[in-house]
Amino acid sequence: MSLNSIFQYFVPKDKKVFFPLFEQAASNAVAMATILVETVNSDNPATREELFKQIDKLENKGDEITHQVYLELGKNFITPFDREDIHALASAIDDVADYIQGAANRMSLYRIDDFNEHIRKLSELTLQGAIELEKAVKELKDLKNVRSIADSCIRINSVENQADYVFDRAVADLFLYETDAIRLIKYKEILSVLETATDMCEDAANVMESILVKNA
Amino acid sequence: MSLNSIFQYFVPKDKKVFFPLFEQAASNAVAMATILVETVNSDNPATREELFKQIDKLENKGDEITHQVYLELGKNFITPFDREDIHALASAIDDVADYIQGAANRMSLYRIDDFNEHIRKLSELTLQGAIELEKAVKELKDLKNVRSIADSCIRINSVENQADYVFDRAVADLFLYETDAIRLIKYKEILSVLETATDMCEDAANVMESILVKNA
Amino acid sequence: MSLNSIFQYFVPKDKKVFFPLFEQAASNAVAMATILVETVNSDNPATREELFKQIDKLENKGDEITHQVYLELGKNFITPFDREDIHALASAIDDVADYIQGAANRMSLYRIDDFNEHIRKLSELTLQGAIELEKAVKELKDLKNVRSIADSCIRINSVENQADYVFDRAVADLFLYETDAIRLIKYKEILSVLETATDMCEDAANVMESILVKNA
Repeated sequence: MSLNSIFQYFVPKDKKVFFPLFEQAASNAVAMATILVETVNSDNPATREELFKQIDKLENKGDEITHQVYLELGKNFITPFDREDIHALASAIDDVADYIQGAANRMSLYRIDDFNEHIRKLSELTLQGAIELEKAVKELKDLKNVRSIADSCIRINSVENQADYVFDRAVADLFLYETDAIRLIKYKEILSVLETATDMCEDAANVMESILVKNA
Repeated sequence: MSLNSIFQYFVPKDKKVFFPLFEQAASNAVAMATILVETVNSDNPATREELFKQIDKLENKGDEITHQVYLELGKNFITPFDREDIHALASAIDDVADYIQGAANRMSLYRIDDFNEHIRKLSELTLQGAIELEKAVKELKDLKNVRSIADSCIRINSVENQADYVFDRAVADLFLYETDAIRLIKYKEILSVLETATDMCEDAANVMESILVKNA
Repeated sequence: MSLNSIFQYFVPKDKKVFFPLFEQAASNAVAMATILVETVNSDNPATREELFKQIDKLENKGDEITHQVYLELGKNFITPFDREDIHALASAIDDVADYIQGAANRMSLYRIDDFNEHIRKLSELTLQGAIELEKAVKELKDLKNVRSIADSCIRINSVENQADYVFDRAVADLFLYETDAIRLIKYKEILSVLETATDMCEDAANVMESILVKNA
């Protein structure tokens, strides 16, 4: 019996605390990414401004959930997984939300009104990554369906690889065809923030893989 | 009695080691931010170059203090707070100093001679953040005035929110009114480094809040 | 006798696991940096494309080594050094490789065909940093030659300082002489990624210094 299994006898309370917070944070990121995809497919500026505001509100909600995890981590001496893993997972999900909001915020600030296929594709990949993240987080609670968590992590890795590829093509295209340096700066930055959102999904997947290995 | 309280009997030596170093590092960051504010309000290029050199010197001094914390962490098995918190707090204060120096260094390298209101405002917010950081760090030693530490952390969060707002306005303005792409790149980067300096103050505040929760 | 020394009796298996992986990762980074230097000194575009592909392959190999370290960290309860140091060292070497590949990837994507002295110098400094890193990692196994590890770390710090200096000069030059904003963006980004590669060597050196202090 591993130390971890022994600890599990003492932690029903903690499980009730951390897992619902992880699930809320992941669902919140999915909601944000869903609105982002809707935004980059809308050609109505007023609709988009409304959607940007919704993303901002959800990002604030996500911050509160993350803060709650940190507070609980401070209080609970015994935790279901390693404290550092709980902290790392909460931070990684928070980072996904931050980069989604960061992309939306720049689209709004830079007054982007023409979303090319690359931006739409990266937004969809971010949503796919967030959906797999939410699935994996929901299974994490009882660790019964380890295969399913591992599969989600593999799919997140694949999403991140696709995003890398799309980003590289998009930036190469910008440097080939965009002659307006200021437009180039705007688009490059938005593409980069979207690509980083998928990196953050991968970071979260790495934390979950590490939890699986330790608790298998 | 928590494990932490038991440890406190054994650590007078450590308290004598870590807290003075934290205070020195925070005071050093305040000194750097004070000179930065002076620089962006000066219209004499020679004065500014002199001030940039002073910031560089203080940044080196800060590096030495941080290095000292890491060395002591390696030596002392028992520490006043969690080792990871001591490491994180020292790193966070060091990051504040690095970004202040990074902003100053870019102003000098890019030969900026016209500091707009946004740059001045972000420099002042950085100074405010550093001052609150120094206050909180000074109270951390005995944890008697927990309320005062928490208040400083809240004010640092407010400073960071204001800096986000100023940064977003400043960048939106650049994209609206700056037609010279190369000037836009220079200003955008300086604004971004200043805004990150306030993020680093918030990181330090987060570490202190986490210390408060654990040791309350 | 420190706790760490006691643990050393139990860990021959772990030493056999982690140190060969660290050595492989560091040698892999040296191989990547060697090809990078070759690339920026070649004036044959076809040769360069071939070399970029080799760097990509080695980066994948490096990812697998890093992943192996994380898997082993999950399995082994007792490790030769602090688990966090093993994780940090593996991550830092992986970061060196990532930034070398990142620089190469951008040179290829941005179709750079004229490598100035600054890019060549930063590539050489990255190679020097990687070589010192490999040397230090090889000595880490038995901690017999502590002086030699410390000397490599000092040389890595000096490499990073030189890289900072070259980068600052290079960027100042770009802003003084480059009138094409899009070319300026390309070169600035490549210089920045190369400079960050040397920062990552310094991060690895910091981890090793921290291991030395704890295990001296």
